[in-house]
Amino acid sequence: MYNLIEKKEIFAGRLKKLRRRLDEIGADGIIIIKDENIFYITGFYGHDSGSALVITKKEVFLIVHFIYFEKAKTSVLLHETNIMQFRSNKKEVFEKIFSEIEGESFGIESSFVNYESYIKYKKSLKKTAKKLINLPGFVEKQRIIKDSIELEAIKKACSIADEAIKNIIEMEPERIKDFTESRMALYIEELMLKEGASSRAFNLIVAGNASSSLPHYEPAHKILQNGILLFDIGCIWEHYCSDITRTIFIRNGPPGQKNMMCRRNIDKIKEIYDIVLGAQLLALQQCREGMTCSRLDAIARDFIEKKGYGQYFGHGLGHGVGLEVHEGPTISGKDNTVLEENMVITIEPGIYIGGIGGVRIEDMVIVKKGCAVNLYNCPKTEIYI
Amino acid sequence: MYNLIEKKEIFAGRLKKLRRRLDEIGADGIIIIKDENIFYITGFYGHDSGSALVITKKEVFLIVHFIYFEKAKTSVLLHETNIMQFRSNKKEVFEKIFSEIEGESFGIESSFVNYESYIKYKKSLKKTAKKLINLPGFVEKQRIIKDSIELEAIKKACSIADEAIKNIIEMEPERIKDFTESRMALYIEELMLKEGASSRAFNLIVAGNASSSLPHYEPAHKILQNGILLFDIGCIWEHYCSDITRTIFIRNGPPGQKNMMCRRNIDKIKEIYDIVLGAQLLALQQCREGMTCSRLDAIARDFIEKKGYGQYFGHGLGHGVGLEVHEGPTISGKDNTVLEENMVITIEPGIYIGGIGGVRIEDMVIVKKGCAVNLYNCPKTEIYI
Repeated sequence: MYNLIEKKEIFAGRLKKLRRRLDEIGADGIIIIKDENIFYITGFYGHDSGSALVITKKEVFLIVHFIYFEKAKTSVLLHETNIMQFRSNKKEVFEKIFSEIEGESFGIESSFVNYESYIKYKKSLKKTAKKLINLPGFVEKQRIIKDSIELEAIKKACSIADEAIKNIIEMEPERIKDFTESRMALYIEELMLKEGASSRAFNLIVAGNASSSLPHYEPAHKILQNGILLFDIGCIWEHYCSDITRTIFIRNGPPGQKNMMCRRNIDKIKEIYDIVLGAQLLALQQCREGMTCSRLDAIARDFIEKKGYGQYFGHGLGHGVGLEVHEGPTISGKDNTVLEENMVITIEPGIYIGGIGGVRIEDMVIVKKGCAVNLYNCPKTEIYI
Repeated sequence: MYNLIEKKEIFAGRLKKLRRRLDEIGADGIIIIKDENIFYITGFYGHDSGSALVITKKEVFLIVHFIYFEKAKTSVLLHETNIMQFRSNKKEVFEKIFSEIEGESFGIESSFVNYESYIKYKKSLKKTAKKLINLPGFVEKQRIIKDSIELEAIKKACSIADEAIKNIIEMEPERIKDFTESRMALYIEELMLKEGASSRAFNLIVAGNASSSLPHYEPAHKILQNGILLFDIGCIWEHYCSDITRTIFIRNGPPGQKNMMCRRNIDKIKEIYDIVLGAQLLALQQCREGMTCSRLDAIARDFIEKKGYGQYFGHGLGHGVGLEVHEGPTISGKDNTVLEENMVITIEPGIYIGGIGGVRIEDMVIVKKGCAVNLYNCPKTEIYI
């Protein structure tokens, strides 16, 4: 755990790096409106709070609505932040700041800000002879490589999700069948909260049998049955996310249940389970600094394609995880980002057969020089309950 | 409950109205990318799915990623929808559609789409000599007035939240103090899921004592104590949201607990409780068709100001609720929208005193000709546990 002074130093270092990067591209500052990015730089996190952060070569202004002022004062870790509050007119505060600061060109998060707001910012800057430059994903690019404080939080978030999965795997088979999918999702969240998580990181997926073939399924009020069960879960610890998927087999229920998976389908699922696991282990083993994301994706994809299931693996191999559960880099054929040390990514191949079921196995890793450090311990060989 | 044929008729009616409105402003169609709006028109809901809907004078194209194709096929209620899937290149599918359809000017959700995407859509349309026109909040404007299928879902979502609050109010005092804030939030969600809700509608707020002065507080791992407890909760039923806030008093714990609220602060909270309740009842009684949102806001605000607490009521009186927990209209001094029959809004005045605590009381109502129909039954006179 870091003490307050150490934390403040790390936040100061992030600002320093951001300013150096702005300098390199000739920008005099940046307007940041994405909550995660505001947190990353200042330590203040206001979900959907409509806050804005203005960084110049010399100053930092955090503009928050009146109702977030108290929270901002107590949570900001960046020493030099000027916290400004507005009640109904953010524009007024914003334009006052821009009339007083130096500099000509200011970046904006153009892949995040909506078009109408973009135009308003542009007009506001024009009033003071300043111009807007598009810096899509500028802070996100810096966030791709995690610093020590972030890695600590991510590890903790992962260990909590890991324990939750272990808890489910060890559950009595009679007990597991008392659950519906949605009740199970809530139970998992409860387990994670008990371990100190602040919340789930996304709407947890618990998908039984044929529903597991829908990669973004939402849990329903359906009682769990013999067959397979896919969990895609994660929690938040000090604003950082975890993300893990396991697919398990349930087989100890009374035969003849409704919605049960038939023998032939079970065999099919077992076949694809081994293929997905093979692809995942291979990608985990090969993943390391210096490899491109597209290469890593190809390692798992080629393996699955050779087994004849290429068309059933319809998503990328993984994604970065941090303050957002999906962030850069994208592990897909289209992303040629080179993996660097301390990037944190998921590795999650899947095969989905409509009407029958799907298998996905997902771990999160920290990229290192000659390897990738897996953040989960819970088993992933075929698990039977 | 509506049967499938009735549902399909209602969805067809929404499209018809949308096309009529597009016609009125001389647009040949619209590109819709906001998930709630795509659902409103088609019946397909893909959270963060990157889907797009193109509506022309004659056709409807729903563009979804490969992994949502199955879900789209089974959930679309709009008969004439052509479902198109893409694997990695949405742009290609999009441009193919635009090269084949008739019309010159197409609207886009300019207050939702990010700037970079906006520019891409613009370029794609330019290739086929079509132009983009900005239609911020175009579908949302239609969604402000709820149709029968929506009102039914909203009423159900409200009744579930209502029951959850009643359940908490009737809880044994000894039991309530076994909970932390975050555990209580999860318990409430569990209650709502048991009643058939598909999930919570937002991150539920459970805020004890001084934390209640932060209107957007996040529940912490803090044991509930003597003093006050603010709940701001809501659930989702068939994609529609509920939203309700109650502030209750807990007084039966052993004296001398840590973090307990002192006598003087309790008295202060009781004073503001009565003021907030008075303001809320007055606004509920006055709310009706034909009144402007700003007028409704002023009714509650004037009441609170006359009591000397105007500066502590730092947010609008309410907001619309439907597919989104916050949607139009905004009940604030800045919104001169005239209330119409079957708008659904919250009425939620609050007074927040930093370091001491806050009180907010929130109901949801359906606006009617001479009145507003409150969707909650649970008590709101001072409640002691």
